[in-house]
Amino acid sequence: MKIYTKRISLITNKNFELIDVTDTVKRIVSESNIRNGFSIIFSLHTTTGLIIQESEEGLMKDIVNFFEKIVPREFENYRHTHYFYKDGRMAVNPWAHLRSILTGLSLTVPVENRDLLLGGRQRIFFVELDGPQRRTFVVQVIGE
Amino acid sequence: MKIYTKRISLITNKNFELIDVTDTVKRIVSESNIRNGFSIIFSLHTTTGLIIQESEEGLMKDIVNFFEKIVPREFENYRHTHYFYKDGRMAVNPWAHLRSILTGLSLTVPVENRDLLLGGRQRIFFVELDGPQRRTFVVQVIGE
Amino acid sequence: MKIYTKRISLITNKNFELIDVTDTVKRIVSESNIRNGFSIIFSLHTTTGLIIQESEEGLMKDIVNFFEKIVPREFENYRHTHYFYKDGRMAVNPWAHLRSILTGLSLTVPVENRDLLLGGRQRIFFVELDGPQRRTFVVQVIGE
Repeated sequence: MKIYTKRISLITNKNFELIDVTDTVKRIVSESNIRNGFSIIFSLHTTTGLIIQESEEGLMKDIVNFFEKIVPREFENYRHTHYFYKDGRMAVNPWAHLRSILTGLSLTVPVENRDLLLGGRQRIFFVELDGPQRRTFVVQVIGE
Repeated sequence: MKIYTKRISLITNKNFELIDVTDTVKRIVSESNIRNGFSIIFSLHTTTGLIIQESEEGLMKDIVNFFEKIVPREFENYRHTHYFYKDGRMAVNPWAHLRSILTGLSLTVPVENRDLLLGGRQRIFFVELDGPQRRTFVVQVIGE
Repeated sequence: MKIYTKRISLITNKNFELIDVTDTVKRIVSESNIRNGFSIIFSLHTTTGLIIQESEEGLMKDIVNFFEKIVPREFENYRHTHYFYKDGRMAVNPWAHLRSILTGLSLTVPVENRDLLLGGRQRIFFVELDGPQRRTFVVQVIGE
């Protein structure tokens, strides 16, 4: 068994942003020299997500609109506040945490013949839910 | 470490359908001759899901009704359209993609003594969210 | 490859309760003597969840309030009923199952240097959705 672990950092540009990281993960799988096994993709933040979806411009907008509707930013009963060091102020961002619970923040994907085993329309998206910020996710490739 | 990978295809019958695939996955675990480890079940489609739930007829209806309510088919702002080759027309199915984000499309289940380690009421369901269609999911069994 | 599997039982105290089990999982990782690999945390119940979130009192209340709102207990069309042996009566608890679908009931976390590889604010929570009850979850540590 071989285990290959890499940390990937990225700077997000928007408050809510879907970033296609499929090619990054595929490159790490290739580097690992692991032929068969699987990959764990794991975000280190509680206001981000990781999902597998189709890459289509209209769908990206539908995803943002859906989460804005189902977990609204304005809700009088929110209790969670968060100190933003960069802004020197308290902020109320429980909606970002709640959205992260719904998306999930890690993925497990089979690896076959030195590549991710994905469906024809499947792409891996890192989901920024409270940006812009510097973010890090871990890619592990495990197998033989 | 042994890695045993199988693809399972199925034809779904309804637009929204929950299909109990527990026995199929258990058969693959048994075939694999892996005594202890885990299994990854991974759908290759972005309008399907995989969940673990109790198998009970009333609950199956509640799941369908809940997703129809929380991610409605009719919403004037949907942007995503999809070409259905079989129908020769464009269709608007972002609700199926959004439902898939909420269910998730893969599972990881412990394997012990050549069987899935599931709770007494737990069954594995493949969730068709935009059928009927031919679908494929991957079952990997990894361990010793 | 080493595989170390433990079952953890706990008694929950509330109907909807978030229980920080991070230290329990870390102790099992340490006991396993596995230096690098990953951990699978898997609940054996269909009315519980497992999530990774920040541990903050206000956020805990926001999570409860959000799920009470999005999957309400009172809904005239619920079909699923469940016999509670301890109470000798039928109960309607589909909301607990539906909430479990949204949270998910298992997690996969990287292990590095004999410890969970978590972000600075990430904690692992077992989510009781239909308590109080005795519950069990499985922790597997896999690696070298």
